[in-house]
Amino acid sequence: MTDLLPQPCDLLIEAGWVVPVEPHGAVLADHAVAVADGRILALLPAAEARARFAARETVRRPDAVLIPGFVNAHTHNPMTLLRGIADDMPLMQWLQQHIWPVEAAVIGPEFVADGVALAIAEMLRGGTTCCNENYFFPDVQAEVYRRHGFRARVGLPVIDFPTAWAKTADDYFARAAEVHDRWRDDPLIGTAFAPHAPYTVSDANFERIRMLADQLDVPVHCHVHETADEVHESQDKHGQRPLARLDRLGVVNDRLVAVHMTQLTDAEIALCAERGVTVVHCPESNLKLASGFCPAAALQRAGVALAIGTDGCASNNDLDMVGETRTAALLAKAVAGDASALDAASALRAATLGGARAVGWEDRIGSIEPGKQADLVCIDLSALETQPVHHVLSQLVYAAGRQHVSDVWIAGRAKLRAGALVDMEADALLARARQWRERIAALQR
Amino acid sequence: MTDLLPQPCDLLIEAGWVVPVEPHGAVLADHAVAVADGRILALLPAAEARARFAARETVRRPDAVLIPGFVNAHTHNPMTLLRGIADDMPLMQWLQQHIWPVEAAVIGPEFVADGVALAIAEMLRGGTTCCNENYFFPDVQAEVYRRHGFRARVGLPVIDFPTAWAKTADDYFARAAEVHDRWRDDPLIGTAFAPHAPYTVSDANFERIRMLADQLDVPVHCHVHETADEVHESQDKHGQRPLARLDRLGVVNDRLVAVHMTQLTDAEIALCAERGVTVVHCPESNLKLASGFCPAAALQRAGVALAIGTDGCASNNDLDMVGETRTAALLAKAVAGDASALDAASALRAATLGGARAVGWEDRIGSIEPGKQADLVCIDLSALETQPVHHVLSQLVYAAGRQHVSDVWIAGRAKLRAGALVDMEADALLARARQWRERIAALQR
Repeated sequence: MTDLLPQPCDLLIEAGWVVPVEPHGAVLADHAVAVADGRILALLPAAEARARFAARETVRRPDAVLIPGFVNAHTHNPMTLLRGIADDMPLMQWLQQHIWPVEAAVIGPEFVADGVALAIAEMLRGGTTCCNENYFFPDVQAEVYRRHGFRARVGLPVIDFPTAWAKTADDYFARAAEVHDRWRDDPLIGTAFAPHAPYTVSDANFERIRMLADQLDVPVHCHVHETADEVHESQDKHGQRPLARLDRLGVVNDRLVAVHMTQLTDAEIALCAERGVTVVHCPESNLKLASGFCPAAALQRAGVALAIGTDGCASNNDLDMVGETRTAALLAKAVAGDASALDAASALRAATLGGARAVGWEDRIGSIEPGKQADLVCIDLSALETQPVHHVLSQLVYAAGRQHVSDVWIAGRAKLRAGALVDMEADALLARARQWRERIAALQR
Repeated sequence: MTDLLPQPCDLLIEAGWVVPVEPHGAVLADHAVAVADGRILALLPAAEARARFAARETVRRPDAVLIPGFVNAHTHNPMTLLRGIADDMPLMQWLQQHIWPVEAAVIGPEFVADGVALAIAEMLRGGTTCCNENYFFPDVQAEVYRRHGFRARVGLPVIDFPTAWAKTADDYFARAAEVHDRWRDDPLIGTAFAPHAPYTVSDANFERIRMLADQLDVPVHCHVHETADEVHESQDKHGQRPLARLDRLGVVNDRLVAVHMTQLTDAEIALCAERGVTVVHCPESNLKLASGFCPAAALQRAGVALAIGTDGCASNNDLDMVGETRTAALLAKAVAGDASALDAASALRAATLGGARAVGWEDRIGSIEPGKQADLVCIDLSALETQPVHHVLSQLVYAAGRQHVSDVWIAGRAKLRAGALVDMEADALLARARQWRERIAALQR
């Protein structure tokens, strides 16, 4: 009994179940989340919430599970326009004969803006509320993410050859500084250094990145140990495996977001754990390009922070974090030879809180805890395909698909409501996608 | 110019693209399929079809690709009611502490009928038109499949211990004969012998199955080389690997539908090719139970007939052949170390025509060819998630999901129309699923 007046709040979401991710493995039946000013105010039983809060809007989803939004920890979103342009071929043939020539012909602000907009719509429809972007023209990306109210870390590219984005090392760093300066105080957008990979970035540039990342307090987002060839080439050229070389250059620390990591010795896993490196596992890209198997369960057991990414649509071919999380959970078991490896709760944690850590925002997003941003997702479990519900976490990770995502909020703002995009016009996005298809087809004739 | 009158037909389906599977890799833009008496009459350009046929019904799907229905070549459909009942644990703990005790308490005609009905609805919504069923009470299964107009081979179980279905070897064979006799002339239902696995079936019973399968002209559907443990145990007990033992017993021939096959030597692959064995690859089950990796690309290269199955919902946890085909295509590349392995066309072929061969009906279903049964599926490619369409086969296998299945026909009868089940009541199925959840939860208390 209380005689307090109900507390005002902007939004109350009542769900059949809430999986807050923290505490790990918790499944709370008939709970609600109260949201005010874009933040999570409280997580509590729905009956209590109705008494305690006077909400401007109440959303009731008795058949859904409410989770923190997925964080796609590695993606090249403009490449959504290149979805399926070239499949089923070896990596170098794919890159040299297809991806690079097409990119050379289309890349620029217009391509990047259209690709990111299409990607945002796809991500929202699949329950992703934040991404760790890695492509050229981060200035354009940031504008588009901001315009659509989508949370993103945009990568500041560094690569040892001229591209449409920059020509010289000084040029890359100057443009990086400009983009960082423009977005440094934005509530939704952040930046990260994005040296492409050990085999395309010099010692000097890695050392410069180490210094600047410390000064600007941003992550370093890099493809590392993607393939065995990369490791062999580094041994030939530098006398060291790439991770050892990066360690010599000072970048193996808690800023490093190391993507792929399919080739790892036990000592390298221990090094990553000790230094606080985040490993981004992209299982479907690694399978599709025959890159190898990231030892996700061994990393997790060693205490390495694990996140999940889709990689770009030219090598996946989707931005489906529901599916990627499932693939990560399935694949980890076969790779470890242990059916209990990377269980449903751990896979979901990697795809949410793990991603939040990758982008340096674990204090802000990735779990449903009071004070965090209200980046929230409802996944409906009432369809035939997710019935009966013996165990919520199992249904969520092993049976649900992205089509069961019903509602999405970012910083408390509705972005998807009962399956429909709130403030994006799908028809316009589709029209632009078709135009790019025509332009790219004309190039290939 | 022709002065012939248009030919009557029951149904004309016009699609943006038709992928007939045979010829291999073909993608036919703006084509149509004419259907009469449940069979495919013709596949031809849509404009020609309009002139040549007077159809009682025309279905136009300009944004969809029309394919033959998926054949799920290995499933335990009553277990759909056990979806997610126990995950993330080693195989023997899973079986002994969870699956078997629950099955012992629930198994019977009612459980089997409800589970199969739920599975049929899920399969239809995901574009599957035929399955190779493997569970107890095939008599009940067959009745339910027939009632819903679904095509199925039901397995006639043989296992060396008493179950709810039969007690002694003679009992298993007597019941098998009865079920076969009841369904031997049915246009939709067939039977197969389903010896559980080499480690649960005696030499004498395999020899009896070999003889009876020849006499009745039916397939032999068996789990083979699912895990390394199975192989080692057979070597200890019989002094032979399971496949060698089966060969000694005469069952390694073109009737054998060998499921899983994660442990294979080059000589065993060659033996399968030579004898015309069909291998059913269940990639997601093999991953989830940490069973190992089926060498799908090596089998395909050796000329072994390859089919794809989901396995049961307690170990997958879905009946999603769109997703399973994608996983098969992705995984094959990493296992082979070759990004060109099991390309999109080959994966789709395994999931359709390969499955048709597994069930012994390759002359009847599995491809869009005149004379074959009209088991047809439309998959819509107009969603954001499948745009832009640079290559139809890539979108179909690597980007589309089962939620994009719009229309399904079995033997020319509409079963799913614009995403809605035609003649099944989802609410009733869901109510039964919830009842089973309650009953099973009560058992576990």
